[in-house]
Amino acid sequence: MISSQTSEAGAGLAVGIADIERAAERIRGHAVRTPLIESPALNRLVGGRILVKPEVLQRTGSFKFRGAYNCVSQIPEGARTAGVVAFSSGNHAQGVAAAANLLGMPATIVMPSDAPAIKVDSTRAWGAEIVFFDRERDDREAVARTVAAEKRASIVPPYDDPHVIAGQGTTGLEIAADLRALGADPAAVVVPCGSGGLIAGTSIAITAALPGVPIYAAEPAGFDDTTRSLKSGRRERTQPGAKSWCDALLAPTPGEITFAINRKTLSGGLVVTDDAVARAMYVAFVHLKLVVEPGGAVALASVLSGKLAARGQTIVVICSGGNVDSSVFANALQRGVAGLS
Amino acid sequence: MISSQTSEAGAGLAVGIADIERAAERIRGHAVRTPLIESPALNRLVGGRILVKPEVLQRTGSFKFRGAYNCVSQIPEGARTAGVVAFSSGNHAQGVAAAANLLGMPATIVMPSDAPAIKVDSTRAWGAEIVFFDRERDDREAVARTVAAEKRASIVPPYDDPHVIAGQGTTGLEIAADLRALGADPAAVVVPCGSGGLIAGTSIAITAALPGVPIYAAEPAGFDDTTRSLKSGRRERTQPGAKSWCDALLAPTPGEITFAINRKTLSGGLVVTDDAVARAMYVAFVHLKLVVEPGGAVALASVLSGKLAARGQTIVVICSGGNVDSSVFANALQRGVAGLS
Repeated sequence: MISSQTSEAGAGLAVGIADIERAAERIRGHAVRTPLIESPALNRLVGGRILVKPEVLQRTGSFKFRGAYNCVSQIPEGARTAGVVAFSSGNHAQGVAAAANLLGMPATIVMPSDAPAIKVDSTRAWGAEIVFFDRERDDREAVARTVAAEKRASIVPPYDDPHVIAGQGTTGLEIAADLRALGADPAAVVVPCGSGGLIAGTSIAITAALPGVPIYAAEPAGFDDTTRSLKSGRRERTQPGAKSWCDALLAPTPGEITFAINRKTLSGGLVVTDDAVARAMYVAFVHLKLVVEPGGAVALASVLSGKLAARGQTIVVICSGGNVDSSVFANALQRGVAGLS
Repeated sequence: MISSQTSEAGAGLAVGIADIERAAERIRGHAVRTPLIESPALNRLVGGRILVKPEVLQRTGSFKFRGAYNCVSQIPEGARTAGVVAFSSGNHAQGVAAAANLLGMPATIVMPSDAPAIKVDSTRAWGAEIVFFDRERDDREAVARTVAAEKRASIVPPYDDPHVIAGQGTTGLEIAADLRALGADPAAVVVPCGSGGLIAGTSIAITAALPGVPIYAAEPAGFDDTTRSLKSGRRERTQPGAKSWCDALLAPTPGEITFAINRKTLSGGLVVTDDAVARAMYVAFVHLKLVVEPGGAVALASVLSGKLAARGQTIVVICSGGNVDSSVFANALQRGVAGLS
């Protein structure tokens, strides 16, 4: 559903601030209202003030629950028995499985066969049925469409959907409210970016509350499609065969709806290496005591690696997810310590 | 300083609710006001509602900053130049070093030579001078007294001090306020216990707000001195040579002041194995996305291992610290996964 816009922020776009405010009402009491946290030690490390939005503390361990719940809760009564279908590398899978479970609906999730075990297990724990696909060989959307047609189920898209984007935007609404409460005036907001759903919604909410504050997409090297698309003005694709351990951000190209928003709301992209991500995961471990997954740590990594100057500035950074296998996490800590010494 | 009591909670004891309320005023804006958090997945796992007080998010990564700041901030102007001395296995060290730094005072910390590297490094990062002692051979209090005499510095005791206990008690004050806001009625409150400073202060605050709610000390096997002391009614000692990886809780016997409080306020002790602690650290990693150190995880471990029945109950658990070396944490995750499978 494309909503009509009356508000200035998001005017002419598929999602407006009013949609995000309505999403906030829908998810209230179901999603975790995450705080903005900061660590004096981290602040000292960068010589500025880093305000962290820990979406790792969100239900299902990532922001994805927000958009999933906002979308699934709007499926009409008559269509609920048939349930929902989603395709996802893991975080959207858990978000949809949890939302469907809470709303009493069956869920089938199409996941890549190499998805982290922790994401597969958690999705199953929410009662969802899982259908695996091969990331290199199969078209995940086609697999999902086939499953949905068989079951007459509703597809919950991972990012290119106004309801999903509006749900993710509640993250930005909360950030803006907390900045007001703190009396803090940020120099920038940095958001992890895969296909751009979180940053599209968040940027509309931030722009509505704090017009003029620059918002940056953080991306892993090799998957800098949004960064390059923002430069060229059209949706660019990643190089085939690119690899990154940021499993949550392996999007080949920006979404159509998300990019239409992001090209208007974002100031640019910041691209970080896997080593910088490992260091950020280690710093979050040491100074924030938070478990952040590789893809969730790219925004923090962009500040720590100096892609965005933080000295003397207040910068908001979203840590978007914490669903990481313990062996991968242990490896990141080892790599992160080495990178810092 | 022993305060006179007017309030019922803590009447006749060295610390009363009014002392804790004054401590809360002193630490406001310096200590982190930690929330009560919960994880639907963790709740499902135990079949009850677990409300976690994440003191891992506290300044310096543990609750110790509360008591240290409350104590150090009351040192009179004339005695500030000479600075402070503290003996500590690590968390109190960081708390005192940070408090002294924020108040512009020099700090010397007497630490065991086997203290975790992360605790030594963080203490140094706050500008403190470190003097090492041998845990088996030296008397840490004697070393601290010698250093303090040389420098004419004030000693900040780790637990057996009314100001320190009152500061730690602010943890309980915040828990009580958040329980009120949630409308939650807990069946029990479980608190990690070394020499008993955190639980002494916390139990006075909880008892004042929620009289009759049972409060339990969680301890690691081999260091169950408070559990045994609560049974016998007098301060028992641990067996010499006992070992545990809960480095923050290796107290040989309860404090004098802390035990005088705890014998009146506590319902008993819960003793957990190192394996149960590893599982709790893993569960906090997976479901809470929090980094908890071994000693900080004993209360959660007591619930997860069934030492306290949680089914159908609301239980408050303090995760008291998160200062753990990355190699130890990686090892705990490995051990915790194995323990759960």
